[in-house]
Amino acid sequence: MADLQARLVEALGERHVSPGATDPDLQHDECLTVPPTAAALVVHPGCTADVAAVLRIAAEFRVPVTARGRGTGMSGAAVPRPDGVLVAFDRMDAVLEIDEGNHVAVVQPGVTLARLDEATRPVGLFYPVSPGEGSASLGGNVATNAGGMRAVRYGVTRHHVLGVEAVLVGGEVIRTGGRYVKTSSGYDLTQLIVGSEGTLALVTEVTLRLSPRTTHQATLLAPFPTFGAVTAAVPPIIASGVGPVILEYIDFLTMAAITANVDLDLGIPQQVKETAQAYLVVMLEQRDAGRLEEDVGRLGDQLTGLGATDVYVLPGGSAHRLIDAREKTFWVAKAAGANDIVDVVVPRAAMPEFLDQVRQIAEQHSSHVVGCGHAGDGNVHLGVFQPDPQVRHRLLHELFAVGHALGGAISGEHGIGQAKRHFFAELTDPTVLALLRRLKAAFDPDGILNPAVLFEETDA
Amino acid sequence: MADLQARLVEALGERHVSPGATDPDLQHDECLTVPPTAAALVVHPGCTADVAAVLRIAAEFRVPVTARGRGTGMSGAAVPRPDGVLVAFDRMDAVLEIDEGNHVAVVQPGVTLARLDEATRPVGLFYPVSPGEGSASLGGNVATNAGGMRAVRYGVTRHHVLGVEAVLVGGEVIRTGGRYVKTSSGYDLTQLIVGSEGTLALVTEVTLRLSPRTTHQATLLAPFPTFGAVTAAVPPIIASGVGPVILEYIDFLTMAAITANVDLDLGIPQQVKETAQAYLVVMLEQRDAGRLEEDVGRLGDQLTGLGATDVYVLPGGSAHRLIDAREKTFWVAKAAGANDIVDVVVPRAAMPEFLDQVRQIAEQHSSHVVGCGHAGDGNVHLGVFQPDPQVRHRLLHELFAVGHALGGAISGEHGIGQAKRHFFAELTDPTVLALLRRLKAAFDPDGILNPAVLFEETDA
Repeated sequence: MADLQARLVEALGERHVSPGATDPDLQHDECLTVPPTAAALVVHPGCTADVAAVLRIAAEFRVPVTARGRGTGMSGAAVPRPDGVLVAFDRMDAVLEIDEGNHVAVVQPGVTLARLDEATRPVGLFYPVSPGEGSASLGGNVATNAGGMRAVRYGVTRHHVLGVEAVLVGGEVIRTGGRYVKTSSGYDLTQLIVGSEGTLALVTEVTLRLSPRTTHQATLLAPFPTFGAVTAAVPPIIASGVGPVILEYIDFLTMAAITANVDLDLGIPQQVKETAQAYLVVMLEQRDAGRLEEDVGRLGDQLTGLGATDVYVLPGGSAHRLIDAREKTFWVAKAAGANDIVDVVVPRAAMPEFLDQVRQIAEQHSSHVVGCGHAGDGNVHLGVFQPDPQVRHRLLHELFAVGHALGGAISGEHGIGQAKRHFFAELTDPTVLALLRRLKAAFDPDGILNPAVLFEETDA
Repeated sequence: MADLQARLVEALGERHVSPGATDPDLQHDECLTVPPTAAALVVHPGCTADVAAVLRIAAEFRVPVTARGRGTGMSGAAVPRPDGVLVAFDRMDAVLEIDEGNHVAVVQPGVTLARLDEATRPVGLFYPVSPGEGSASLGGNVATNAGGMRAVRYGVTRHHVLGVEAVLVGGEVIRTGGRYVKTSSGYDLTQLIVGSEGTLALVTEVTLRLSPRTTHQATLLAPFPTFGAVTAAVPPIIASGVGPVILEYIDFLTMAAITANVDLDLGIPQQVKETAQAYLVVMLEQRDAGRLEEDVGRLGDQLTGLGATDVYVLPGGSAHRLIDAREKTFWVAKAAGANDIVDVVVPRAAMPEFLDQVRQIAEQHSSHVVGCGHAGDGNVHLGVFQPDPQVRHRLLHELFAVGHALGGAISGEHGIGQAKRHFFAELTDPTVLALLRRLKAAFDPDGILNPAVLFEETDA
């Protein structure tokens, strides 16, 4: 390890190499179940050449390498190995270019979503993916294919990443894609790297597609008497062409918890609250106030026709506070003592059945499972309250298996990471799993990139 | 070969196995440069199990396998090998499901775009990718990541493929993705298979995302005095938020040729025609006639402000005929004796520079190069008139190299196929090429799937 450290210091300078025990903040992400771990060494590269040097040296020493953006991940993909090197991208945080002609931003992986939003505002553009945490880095977002509430309108990270610069194991630097949306020129390496959780290559630059920034927004809140009615409302709302930018459901328990958390009174009468099993939150946007008003009227009528008990058009302040409160669900669940938080995705029409089965599974294991989620996307966020790890594992296995059986996947946006790799191994078709391992080996034959992530190490 | 034939007949039945020499239609696609070739044997599978049997037998005999949809491809990716098996998907042409709750269609690979359009119309949804040829199959569209004119609004095939069923070499059947847009659960095999031109796996079922069908459309035609003014107009039009569904440029020579071809008089005065170097065609859509009219007015004013000589709002019939004529550019160029047709993609802001350089390259090689293209996407379609294959290869190499140097790629939507693999090998970073080959080997270690496509065989 002393040799390794000497070589890394030689490459990056003494200031940028330190023992992992020094900084506790670099030992964890926001995952509730993967224990904090100090890397043997932490390096802070300042440029692509630094990253290449680190990967060259790591390959030579065959030590594990884990990349870290801002540590807001939910599945332990940025938690390093005790015998490994953590590559922290905090110094590579430049917005390299805002290209107005092509509606593109080029950023380093350490750039936060908040910073990118600032940088794009003056030119009337924006990066529309909003996974709910402005302090998250684009590098981390690319690694997990982050989603968030606006996905129903704008899609997820992979729909906005046009290309990357990435460093392969051994230090070779490649570029993929470019400042265009269309290409049919070989396998799409960009899309393969997006969502690969640091297991294939380290991304050192991201080319992102930007959208015109909208100027007028309105938020509607509709309580529904049954959960089935909430999800049944989704296809007709989307088919109407109104193009909601947010389409969330919040169950009554979660609504009570998140509004109490921020002391938010939405002005909903007690009587309505008592009969509401779930709420639909719909945000609309337009670049024209008149059309927005018209859309709000039409959508209100449609929601009533679809069985909403009532429809509230939230004033700007309350709307922002509700969306913020919804973004903070994770923190509320954490503070309430949730033992795990997962984000299964199912076909959106299967949500009622999935949630029915989740309720039964929770009861069978004497556990609480509450949640909210992206109704337009079938992405269900669940807080799981069950302190016994073995009971929780059985519960989660059943929960993921039910999602799988309904045609879904373990995670819509959090990723598999270290936290869910056992479940991933248990539920994935062995033929597919073997193929994924062969793809991993095509990039990383010695398996040094995030070896504890996605795959079980024991069945290698 | 007799043994191989016997085994295939045993698996699929005599009716569905025939010598490639029997049917000349199955010996070519629409590529102008790859010569028609008869496969040793053609098979017509009727179901996934048939495809699995074919790939199991082919792997055993180590014979090349080429998949074919409807043969509308532009780069020879569906032209078989003389010693190989052609898998024709004409019998697997069922629309398996239109899922209104999830806004999804599930189709077999032989389904045509026209058939899918019919099947989705009654429920008010549609599959918005429109590569200009309704007789094309979804399987072929997936293989090439087909694009087309509506990509500026809706994206390309890969943005609509949510999952596939595919058969691997050896006959193993896998399923990828599902009826959801968001997922972060392992490498995205769906996106890797889309655009892989039959070199990784054979797709036997496609799950497609549908969009609400729009009801009102209008088409504007704006002549511009310079090509630079046409492309400079694109970013502000997109930034306006009007959301054009089509944003095409047509150079004056191509406009004259395609309108003459269908005897279409757009009512443009001779004087305007004489000063127009290029035309911008913009189609708008809305689900509301009033808003459409308002958008047309605003866009007309914007086009004038951006330097258009005039703005014509085309009546429905003329608009359809112009779009149809534009779709038929390929046939016009072919009839005029074009020796090759290519579709380089560059960052859209780089189009004027690219076309300037193309003009110079054409002159240097005493050749004609004319075209039109997807202005919103930087996807430039060029007809190349130069009968000498060696001169044409040099010209095309320079043309692709210029596109590459401007940050583009060889093909935006046609694919590399057999036709452009030499250029692909010449222009791709060797590190990337080696990585692509390792990915190919992870799926197809013996290289039996479309071995003449994407990669040079000689440098294997």
